[in-house]
Amino acid sequence: MPHDEHDSMMTSPKILISLSSFGAAEVRRHGQLWFARLCHAAGADGVEVRGELLTDAAAELAALARAARELSLNMVYSSPEGIWSADGTLDLPALDRALLAVERLGARRLKMSIGAFGLRSMATLAMLKERLHACSVELVIENDQTPAAGTLAAMQDFFSAAGECGLFLGMTFDMGNWHWVGECPLQAAVALAPQVRYVHCKGVQRQPQRWIAVPLAESSAPWRAVLNALPADVPRAIEYPLAGGDLLAVTRREIIALRGVAAGDAARAGARA
Amino acid sequence: MPHDEHDSMMTSPKILISLSSFGAAEVRRHGQLWFARLCHAAGADGVEVRGELLTDAAAELAALARAARELSLNMVYSSPEGIWSADGTLDLPALDRALLAVERLGARRLKMSIGAFGLRSMATLAMLKERLHACSVELVIENDQTPAAGTLAAMQDFFSAAGECGLFLGMTFDMGNWHWVGECPLQAAVALAPQVRYVHCKGVQRQPQRWIAVPLAESSAPWRAVLNALPADVPRAIEYPLAGGDLLAVTRREIIALRGVAAGDAARAGARA
Amino acid sequence: MPHDEHDSMMTSPKILISLSSFGAAEVRRHGQLWFARLCHAAGADGVEVRGELLTDAAAELAALARAARELSLNMVYSSPEGIWSADGTLDLPALDRALLAVERLGARRLKMSIGAFGLRSMATLAMLKERLHACSVELVIENDQTPAAGTLAAMQDFFSAAGECGLFLGMTFDMGNWHWVGECPLQAAVALAPQVRYVHCKGVQRQPQRWIAVPLAESSAPWRAVLNALPADVPRAIEYPLAGGDLLAVTRREIIALRGVAAGDAARAGARA
Repeated sequence: MPHDEHDSMMTSPKILISLSSFGAAEVRRHGQLWFARLCHAAGADGVEVRGELLTDAAAELAALARAARELSLNMVYSSPEGIWSADGTLDLPALDRALLAVERLGARRLKMSIGAFGLRSMATLAMLKERLHACSVELVIENDQTPAAGTLAAMQDFFSAAGECGLFLGMTFDMGNWHWVGECPLQAAVALAPQVRYVHCKGVQRQPQRWIAVPLAESSAPWRAVLNALPADVPRAIEYPLAGGDLLAVTRREIIALRGVAAGDAARAGARA
Repeated sequence: MPHDEHDSMMTSPKILISLSSFGAAEVRRHGQLWFARLCHAAGADGVEVRGELLTDAAAELAALARAARELSLNMVYSSPEGIWSADGTLDLPALDRALLAVERLGARRLKMSIGAFGLRSMATLAMLKERLHACSVELVIENDQTPAAGTLAAMQDFFSAAGECGLFLGMTFDMGNWHWVGECPLQAAVALAPQVRYVHCKGVQRQPQRWIAVPLAESSAPWRAVLNALPADVPRAIEYPLAGGDLLAVTRREIIALRGVAAGDAARAGARA
Repeated sequence: MPHDEHDSMMTSPKILISLSSFGAAEVRRHGQLWFARLCHAAGADGVEVRGELLTDAAAELAALARAARELSLNMVYSSPEGIWSADGTLDLPALDRALLAVERLGARRLKMSIGAFGLRSMATLAMLKERLHACSVELVIENDQTPAAGTLAAMQDFFSAAGECGLFLGMTFDMGNWHWVGECPLQAAVALAPQVRYVHCKGVQRQPQRWIAVPLAESSAPWRAVLNALPADVPRAIEYPLAGGDLLAVTRREIIALRGVAAGDAARAGARA
């Protein structure tokens, strides 16, 4: 097969920006619509809208939905709430708030973490399954920075329990969050790769008192090895601080860098084929 | 099986405190008995008594033995001496000092490192075996911070040589020490898990000139992945600096945190069963 | 088999010094001949001559060749140029410059990186193969600090393409460079070990803005685990800053330390045999 023809068949992943990357204060000041337009101008394929940064949810989500259609922007909705409450019960109101927000956004993909899913939550999996089947939303579970909803064992146990209940959910793999809970991201990537539908790209550095999120290129972690252990064709979202005098240029530069990583992979995959 | 019944069958590891965690100067000032009582008050299941911090060994060990009985405290004795001398010979006087100390402490478990075990030490393994069979002491070998007695190859070669001699010893797995000798703790945990009878829990951070020990929650290493690669039911000892105005509260907080890690594992194991 | 006889059969790796370790300004000031003599005096088995630090190449290489014969110094020539140009074509002039330099040095081993090898470079592998067969030079490919010529996938794809073309090249495994491109050195070592003919020993530390090279003993990476995943008998070169008032003593100390790592391995291999 000639390389050119083959190359054109390579799928390169969509590049999104989590709007939290621009900083909570800035995003609340300018609104997520303004930043979504900036991301589009910078070359992003889509954005992740953050529930915790909405100030007038109904109006903002409607405006974001219009912009998404107009600019052909891929949209993911991120809910800041866990699916299960501290007592292990399914948090139906939180789930319904998230499903409503996704609908208003005209999006299909909803990102949430499991919260306090545990032994007592087993019986509620059927209810979650029913709720999700009633709509066309794709729920992708994220590993967050808490022991209850962010360790490898917590993820594996949840996906296993859900699967036994006939509920097959994909995962949002956050490359950086594993460090907050003392896990090895490479081990987690190998173990969870089959579930992964969406990747949060985040470099990390350890400061004496805390982990901080940094661009991949400044990460002390083996970020490329982690990316290579994950599916190559699922969307990748930037989720690390984007700041600077020329925010458009900074955002464009980071998108180009992340596309370059994927392009190198695709070129080599073409060479191997 | 109902969850409650099942849960009650889960074994969670004993939590000990290595008394060196309180700092050499402080421990010599107040004595190990004082700190052992503090650990008991803070909720520890036991303490590791440090040979290098005894000032009047016979009297202190006798007092610690009484306290252990009185408070039902689990006791481990840590000898600062290697089992083999620099010339590769078995250091019988050091071994006998350690065995006497364990006996005075009324303890069963003795922690030592191998020192300069090497080619010339092979013939002495039988002598060690005999000495240990003559008493009821369980010797657990620790990986220390030296190339001779702290690398993965040194540990594997020693356990293999001992095994060929019919001497089956358990291991004290120190999570942090591997960094001092340039080893990968996760690789070591996977390789040595079957031997491990006791875990030293220690986070690490790299400073420009040296490694330092820090609480697990402040570690730059994948400490949770390492713990999960080790047996879940063996005792775990805190061995990182415990300091602060309210030492009892600090100690209690760290014990609760470490119990929480194990409890999460146990809850999930219950969910899987 | 008596241990002494056996020990004498153990092969311990040659220890070389990459002359770039002394700093570009210093090396240009004193010349590589001066530093090669210092390395010999410090106990090195050889040196790696750096193309980018030659100021009068023909004269310097001839003088280095004489010194190598006189002192029985092992010589490797490092070309700063990539084998393939930015447009993917074989950079024949660069290759010929490197082959001429190796010849002038009286050396056999040439270290280069692949540069911009890619899809369009496939057809040129036969030409490289021919060129190398015409001389007695052993080309060893180094993973550098660039995405094109330093990632695990780039290395694997190159070696695989070359192999399919009947061109079997060894590798210079740089332990530290993997960090610059976000790879995991241990994963790379396991994957590439069969190719490795030469190791660049380099510790790393992450500073907020960049990676820096440091002595192995100061590395934040699991350098010993990486070395142990590589062939034990291939030459190892120091490639981290060597500086200080008494440069001879510093160099000697680092050589002794690196020999000690290998000697420990050899002693244990003897114990196992």
